[in-house]
Amino acid sequence: MAKQNQETQTQEPGSLGSKSQPLSNFKYSNRVQLKSIFLNRTDGGAEFIGQTVVVGGWVKSSKEVEKSSPPPPPSTPAPENETPAKDISCVEIFQSRIPLIRNIMEVLGGSSYVSRKKLRDSPIPKPLPPKSSTAYLLLTDGSCVATLQVVVESSIATPSRLLATGTCILVEGRIERPSAEGKHAIQLTADKVLHIGTVDVGKYPLSKKRIPLDMLRDYSHFRPRTTTVATVMRVRSALSFATHSFFKDHAFFDVQVPTITTTDSKGFSNMFQVTTSGNQKADKEKLSTIYETEGVSLETVKEAAKEKSKLVETLKRSESNKEALAAAIQDLRKTIELESQLEAREKKIFGTLLKHDRVDSSEDFFSTQTYLTVSGRLHLESFASALGNVYSFGPRFQADKTDSAKHAAEMWMVEAEMAFAELKDSITCANDLFKYLCKWVLENHSDDVKFVGKRIDNTCIDRLREIISGSPQIISYNEALDVLRKAEDKKSEAKFESGARLTSDHLSYLADIVYKKPVIIHSYPKEAKPFYVRVNDDKTVAAFDLVVPKVGTIISGSQNEERLTVISSRITELGLPREKYEWYLDLCRNGTVKHAGFTLNFDLMILYITGLSNVRDVIPFPRSHGKANN
Amino acid sequence: MAKQNQETQTQEPGSLGSKSQPLSNFKYSNRVQLKSIFLNRTDGGAEFIGQTVVVGGWVKSSKEVEKSSPPPPPSTPAPENETPAKDISCVEIFQSRIPLIRNIMEVLGGSSYVSRKKLRDSPIPKPLPPKSSTAYLLLTDGSCVATLQVVVESSIATPSRLLATGTCILVEGRIERPSAEGKHAIQLTADKVLHIGTVDVGKYPLSKKRIPLDMLRDYSHFRPRTTTVATVMRVRSALSFATHSFFKDHAFFDVQVPTITTTDSKGFSNMFQVTTSGNQKADKEKLSTIYETEGVSLETVKEAAKEKSKLVETLKRSESNKEALAAAIQDLRKTIELESQLEAREKKIFGTLLKHDRVDSSEDFFSTQTYLTVSGRLHLESFASALGNVYSFGPRFQADKTDSAKHAAEMWMVEAEMAFAELKDSITCANDLFKYLCKWVLENHSDDVKFVGKRIDNTCIDRLREIISGSPQIISYNEALDVLRKAEDKKSEAKFESGARLTSDHLSYLADIVYKKPVIIHSYPKEAKPFYVRVNDDKTVAAFDLVVPKVGTIISGSQNEERLTVISSRITELGLPREKYEWYLDLCRNGTVKHAGFTLNFDLMILYITGLSNVRDVIPFPRSHGKANN
Repeated sequence: MAKQNQETQTQEPGSLGSKSQPLSNFKYSNRVQLKSIFLNRTDGGAEFIGQTVVVGGWVKSSKEVEKSSPPPPPSTPAPENETPAKDISCVEIFQSRIPLIRNIMEVLGGSSYVSRKKLRDSPIPKPLPPKSSTAYLLLTDGSCVATLQVVVESSIATPSRLLATGTCILVEGRIERPSAEGKHAIQLTADKVLHIGTVDVGKYPLSKKRIPLDMLRDYSHFRPRTTTVATVMRVRSALSFATHSFFKDHAFFDVQVPTITTTDSKGFSNMFQVTTSGNQKADKEKLSTIYETEGVSLETVKEAAKEKSKLVETLKRSESNKEALAAAIQDLRKTIELESQLEAREKKIFGTLLKHDRVDSSEDFFSTQTYLTVSGRLHLESFASALGNVYSFGPRFQADKTDSAKHAAEMWMVEAEMAFAELKDSITCANDLFKYLCKWVLENHSDDVKFVGKRIDNTCIDRLREIISGSPQIISYNEALDVLRKAEDKKSEAKFESGARLTSDHLSYLADIVYKKPVIIHSYPKEAKPFYVRVNDDKTVAAFDLVVPKVGTIISGSQNEERLTVISSRITELGLPREKYEWYLDLCRNGTVKHAGFTLNFDLMILYITGLSNVRDVIPFPRSHGKANN
Repeated sequence: MAKQNQETQTQEPGSLGSKSQPLSNFKYSNRVQLKSIFLNRTDGGAEFIGQTVVVGGWVKSSKEVEKSSPPPPPSTPAPENETPAKDISCVEIFQSRIPLIRNIMEVLGGSSYVSRKKLRDSPIPKPLPPKSSTAYLLLTDGSCVATLQVVVESSIATPSRLLATGTCILVEGRIERPSAEGKHAIQLTADKVLHIGTVDVGKYPLSKKRIPLDMLRDYSHFRPRTTTVATVMRVRSALSFATHSFFKDHAFFDVQVPTITTTDSKGFSNMFQVTTSGNQKADKEKLSTIYETEGVSLETVKEAAKEKSKLVETLKRSESNKEALAAAIQDLRKTIELESQLEAREKKIFGTLLKHDRVDSSEDFFSTQTYLTVSGRLHLESFASALGNVYSFGPRFQADKTDSAKHAAEMWMVEAEMAFAELKDSITCANDLFKYLCKWVLENHSDDVKFVGKRIDNTCIDRLREIISGSPQIISYNEALDVLRKAEDKKSEAKFESGARLTSDHLSYLADIVYKKPVIIHSYPKEAKPFYVRVNDDKTVAAFDLVVPKVGTIISGSQNEERLTVISSRITELGLPREKYEWYLDLCRNGTVKHAGFTLNFDLMILYITGLSNVRDVIPFPRSHGKANN
C-alpha cells in the first residue's frame, strides 16, 4: 500500500509545524480540494496564507455587504450558530414546494422562515444592490466537513448570481487572513470567478437552515449537499473501504455472488421477481385465498395476540382482579400457541407453492423463475469449499412491506464464509470485523466522527471507544430467556416460551437495558433459524446474532450443516422444494467440510456508528413503498 | 494500512534466508493455509521442515503405493506433466453425467479416460488394496496455486476413502523432506486425519485431468475447485480490492447506487423489470406487433445487411465481375441506410412506449415501474454535485438476448464521476485506473499471474508490462474512420459512413491489427452516444472509449451535459420520457457544474488481464439464457 499513497501525501501535507507546501490540485480537475486545506490540521489552513489557488464548490450560506458600510460582522454566520443543535436535523432548511410542509416549516422555523417566504413571494423584495458590494460565501466541496469563506467583490461577479444556497462556483483567488477577526483562520479573496451554476431559488429545496432528515428523503438527488448527509455518506464510504480492507488483511477472497438467482437462501423471505415478460401471480395471493376460505389468518392471530398482551399489561397495572389476570394470561398463551402453529404451516404452504405452483416463465429471459437475491451465503459456501475463506459485499433484497425504520427493500450486506471453521470461529471473526469498522472510522475519519458527535449523536465517540476496548456480552438463547424471565418488569413474561423468536422488544431489553452494550446470543432453537444451520447434539442450532443497543441485530451468523443426511431430513421436515437446492446438496455430497460464516447488515452498521435511527437516512438513494423517483 | 498488516506478516514470513518461523494458524480456523507455506518463496517451503501443522484442503490427484513395493516414482504426477498445456483448458477432467460429453471425453482423453470409465462401470474393478499401503495426495486449499503433497499410511486412514479427486481432508502431520526426490521440496507426513469429506465418484464432475472451461459452466458450484478457475477468481478478488484502493488513493468516495431504479441511464437498453405481482407486457412485444404489420423488422434488415456484406466479399475475392461488385456495394449501402433509419425509429418508438404505455403497476410493491439498473452514472452525478469525486462498484443488468462471449445479463461495473472535470480529466483518470489494475496484479499476485501465463495465455505477463510502461493510442472518431478507410484491406469500406457506430470488427481492426495496443477513441458523432453526453461546438460529443486488443471496449467515458437548455432539447429530439428525468434535470437547474466520468466493465477487464475469451469463465456464477441453476 505504501507506494500507492504518494499522491495523497502530496495533497495533505498533514503534520503541523511543517513548512508550508504549495497546495497541489486534485489530479483530475484544476482545483484544490478543501480537504487539502483543512483536513487533519488545527491551524484552520493558516499555513497556506499567501498561496493562489482555484477552488470549486457549492454555496452553503452567504451575505452581501455594501462597500460603503462598516466591515462585516465578526464572521459570516455559520449555520451552527443560528439554530441550537437538536436531535435529528440538518444544516439546510427545506423550502418545500408542498404547501403542507411549508406550513409546518412556518411553525418550526418561526419568523426567519416567514421572512424568507415573504421575500420569495413578493416580486421585487428589495431595491437592486448598490453598485459596489462584497459577497461573503461559505463554500463546501464535499471533500470534508469544513467550509471555506470566499470573498467576492461585486466588480468581479454580480453578487445576486452567487448568493443563493446551492450555487456552484469555481473561483481563483488568494488565501488570506480574514479582513475581520472571526471563527475563520483564512479566507479566499477571489480574483476570477471561472464558473457559476445558478439556482432556481423558487424550487430548490435547500437553504442555509436545518431540516429534519425525513423531509429530505424525497430529494435524494439533493440531500448529499447538506452537511449531515454528506458526512454520513463519507463515513459510509470509509466503512465500505474498511470492510474490504479487513478481509484482505485476513486473507479472504472477494466473490461477487449473483444478484439474479433461483435460490432462496434465507428461507421464506418475500422476494422480488425478475422478469422481461410474463404473467405472474404471487404466492402470497394463493396463501390469502386459503386464509379467506378458513376465515383465520396468521395476520389476524398476530393482531389478537398483541391485543391480548395489552390487556394482560393493563390488568397487571391495575392489580385489582387477580383472577381476570390469570384468565387473560391463559388466553394469551393459547393465542401465541396458535400463532406459532400457523407460522409453521405458512412456511410449509409457501414451500409447497414454490415447489408445485410456479407460473409459466417459458416466455421469459430465463427459463426458470428468477428472483433478486436475499442472501449470498449459500452461494459463498461453494466458493469456501474451494478457496477456503471468502466474502461478498453487495445489495440484497427483501420485498417485505413494512414501515420499519430498520428495513429497506434493497440493503447492502457483508457476507463471509470459511471452510474448516465452526460457530466459535464465525463469532470471533464477526466480532473482529465489528470492532475493526469502529476503529477504522474513529482513527481515520476523526473530522467526520466529530461532526457526527456534535450534530447527530453526542455519545458517538464514547460508543466507538467502548467497542474498541471492550467485548460484547456472550450468552446462549436459553440464558437470554432466563434473563428476560427474571427481569423485574414482568409484563411480557408469557411470551418467552422456548422455541419462539425473540422480538425486537426482547432484543432491545437485553442490549439497551440489561447489558447496555452489544450482546451475542447463540444456540437458538432450530425453529428460529433457516434449514441450513447446523443442528447441535442438544437439538439447538449453531447460530448466533450480534445485537447492539438501539439498532438491534447487526450481524447474524451460523455454522452451516455439512452432514448430508441431516440437511436432507431438514429439507423434508420443512417441506422445502428439494430440487431448488440440489446444487447446494452437491456440496455435502462431495468433499464436504465444516464451515461457518455470517452476514453483517451494512446499513444498520452505519446506523449504529452514526446514531441515526432510520436506514433511509444512510442509504444513498432510499426507496420506500410508492416512492421510486430515481 | 501498515498497522493492519501484522497478522498477514506473521502468516507469511516472506523473505528468503530468514530464520524459520513457526507457521501460525489462520486466525479463524485451526489450520495453516498453504499460502503461508508456499507463497512468495523459492525454496518450496523447505524452511519449515520439522514443523508439525494441521492443513485442510481438497485432493487434486492421488496415488496409492503398496507397502512392499519400491518407493514411489520421483514425484506424484502433477497434472501439468500429463497433458501438454493447450489454449483454454483446466486441471480437472469432466466425468460428465451426460453421455454425449462422456463420448467427447473418450475422444479427447484417450485411453486414460477410458480406463477410468471402465474402473467406474465395473462393480469391483480390483481386489481390495493390501493391508499395508501408502496414499500420496496432492492437496489444494485454494489459498494459492501451489499444492502440498500429503503422505498417509493405511494404518492412519483407509486409502480408498482419501483417493478420489475432490475429497476433503483435514490432517495433522509433520513437514518433512520427501521420501523420494522429485519436484516437491517438502511433503506432509500425516499423523492424524481429523476429517474426511468423501466424494460421490459416479456423479462428481471433476477428476485430475483437464477439461475445457465451457464444459464446466454448468457446474458453477464446483468449478472454483479447478486450479484455473480458482486462479482466475483470486485474480478477480485482487482486482476488486485494487479498484477500491485506487479510488481511495485518489480521494473518491464510494457511493452505492440503487440496483432497483426507474431511470434508464444508458438510453434504450433492454431492462429487467422488478415486480412482486402484476401483469406486464414487454415493450418489445408492442414493437414486434408494429413490425408484423409492416412486414419488415430491424432484425431482418440487419440479417440482410450481413448477407449482402458477405456477397461483396465473395465478389471481391473472385475479382471476375466488377460490375456485379459495384452493384452489390450499392445494394449494401442502401440496406445499411435502411438499417440505421429503422434503428432510429426503434429508439423513438421505444421512448414513446416508455412514456405513454406503461402497464399498470398499482398492485406492485412500488407504485411505479422499476427495473434493474443498467448504469449508475446518472445517480452518481447527483453525488458528484455534492461530494466532488465519487465512484460505484456493483452489478449492472442488461436483458439482451445475445450469445456474445463478451456479454452477460449481470455484469459488475466500476463507475466514476467527477465534478469540475472535463473529458480530458475523465480520460486521464480512466487510463490511470486501467494501468493501476494491471500493475497491482502483476506486482502483488505474481504467483497467480505466472500460472495464468503458463496455463491460459503465455502473453499475459508481457501484456501487463507493456500497459504499465506504455500509453494507449489516442485518436478521434474521425481519425479512426480515416485509418479504417485507408486500411489496405478494403473489404468493409462501405460501412464506414460517418454517424454510424463502429462495430466490434472495426474496433478489433484498430486495436489488434493497426495499433496492436489499447486505443482511446474520442469525439464521437452524437448519434453514437446517449442523450446526456455533452455536445461539442463541432456537433461531436465529448465521449471516449478505451478499446483493447481481443476484448474490445473495456471503458466508456464522457463529459456529460451541464447546460439545461442543451440537454433539454436533446431529450425532446430523441423523444425521451422527460418526466422520468426530471430529477436528473434538477441537477442542471441548481448549482450545475462541468462533470465527467466513465464506466469500466470489470468482467471484461478480467478477460483482458487473464487472456480468457468468455465472460462466463470469469463471472463467479455465470448465467446464460435458459440456465439459472443457482
